Amino acid sequence: MKNEKSTPSDRRSFLKKTTVASVGVLGLGNLQAQSVISKKEKTTRELPKDLTILFQGDSVTDGGRKRDQYYANNTWGGLGGSYVFPAVSELLGSNPTSNIRCYNRGISGDKVFQLSNRWEEDCLQIRPDVLSILIGVNDFWHTLDFNYKGTAKSYEEDFRKLLDRTRKELPNVKLIICEPFAVKGGSAIVEEKWFPAFIAYQNAAKKIASDYNAHWVPFQKTFDDALKIAPVDYWCADGVHPSLGGGELMAKTWLNTFDEISFK
Amino acid sequence: MKNEKSTPSDRRSFLKKTTVASVGVLGLGNLQAQSVISKKEKTTRELPKDLTILFQGDSVTDGGRKRDQYYANNTWGGLGGSYVFPAVSELLGSNPTSNIRCYNRGISGDKVFQLSNRWEEDCLQIRPDVLSILIGVNDFWHTLDFNYKGTAKSYEEDFRKLLDRTRKELPNVKLIICEPFAVKGGSAIVEEKWFPAFIAYQNAAKKIASDYNAHWVPFQKTFDDALKIAPVDYWCADGVHPSLGGGELMAKTWLNTFDEISFK
Repeated sequence: MKNEKSTPSDRRSFLKKTTVASVGVLGLGNLQAQSVISKKEKTTRELPKDLTILFQGDSVTDGGRKRDQYYANNTWGGLGGSYVFPAVSELLGSNPTSNIRCYNRGISGDKVFQLSNRWEEDCLQIRPDVLSILIGVNDFWHTLDFNYKGTAKSYEEDFRKLLDRTRKELPNVKLIICEPFAVKGGSAIVEEKWFPAFIAYQNAAKKIASDYNAHWVPFQKTFDDALKIAPVDYWCADGVHPSLGGGELMAKTWLNTFDEISFK
Repeated sequence: MKNEKSTPSDRRSFLKKTTVASVGVLGLGNLQAQSVISKKEKTTRELPKDLTILFQGDSVTDGGRKRDQYYANNTWGGLGGSYVFPAVSELLGSNPTSNIRCYNRGISGDKVFQLSNRWEEDCLQIRPDVLSILIGVNDFWHTLDFNYKGTAKSYEEDFRKLLDRTRKELPNVKLIICEPFAVKGGSAIVEEKWFPAFIAYQNAAKKIASDYNAHWVPFQKTFDDALKIAPVDYWCADGVHPSLGGGELMAKTWLNTFDEISFK
């Protein structure tokens, strides 16, 4: 509550300071010092009484969620095995006096134009108060391996059109845009082929977030920092799809951004 | 690290102080103050390089885990939708320099004698370093609704036999015993029929934990405290199986107990 009166830049700098804390390895016999990426410390959130949150994206969001729970909210099966479940679990455990409904509608393989194709059913009808989008990795990846003809420019244009349409239908929606990321050294040959070309997509997403006054989730930094502590196989073996440990880091990063939102 | 030299009773009182923090409701227009059950604050854990953790129990542990991942460790599907997944997610996200393997072998409907029937495959062969057991709710419940003839006495005797056998095969295993719980007001008619009879099972589990030098997870208190903040339907509608929010509280409570273990 004390933070409510701090300025946005105060809060951003506080977040920056506390988002990632890495701890060096100490010699402790057969024990090892552990490393932690910690959530911003807070004991209370001020959320509206009713809050609908929609997670949108590709396979990184989908996380193999059960299709027989396609329309469900707040179910383990419907939320999938990536970052969405641990983020929602924390929200529901810590905010019992709000009526929070969380939906995952990520679909494996999607590029931004494919979100657009299913936007009426998978976003607008849900009427989210908070819309979180993580899209872009396939917009680039499929140009390498699947003969897809899109470019960073078409990605940016399609993304903007999607958000214009969303803002028209849902003028009060709070937007969270997540940085598409590629974890270096992953088996999808992330590094040689991906960088620097993929950075154009990341930059486009970041510029869009700024232009649309969206809250930004810096996933690339999360994984870049994580690689200083454990190898790519631990966090995200193919460079694209997180392990459980990687998903937990993403959830903490996402929650730090979520906590920037003011619902007043 | 500083805590390593504190006495067990120091640590217990610290845990007691920090396990549950409830926050009153403030008048904030259409906003609500939130309530939090917080984890013990710690930035590092000292874990062995290799650590195998086995979660055992009934449906509360099972959480609908996918049977096609019966033998898997560290997978979303194999860990189920109850308290195990959020607990493991936190462990894997925060302890990347340990090789942690987590198994869930809870099976819906099990009573303690049924754990015994499958103990060779579902515990001893796994050779856990940490064994967490949550069992007892069906040992009582099935006497009400399923004509089961067991008693609190047979529950206690069977539980002790199971642990004697475990200690013989795995003399160094760290034991965590979780309190079987029933959330008052749940639709399984928890209250009228359950209390005080069910307390005999809880007392048996607690006595066993003490006698076997096991670490104790006080789940009944977790839910009793949670009910002061939100109704039973939010946490555990039938009184037995937690919601996602209830599972998150259980995970935090379990982690607080896990963090009492010294691996030195």
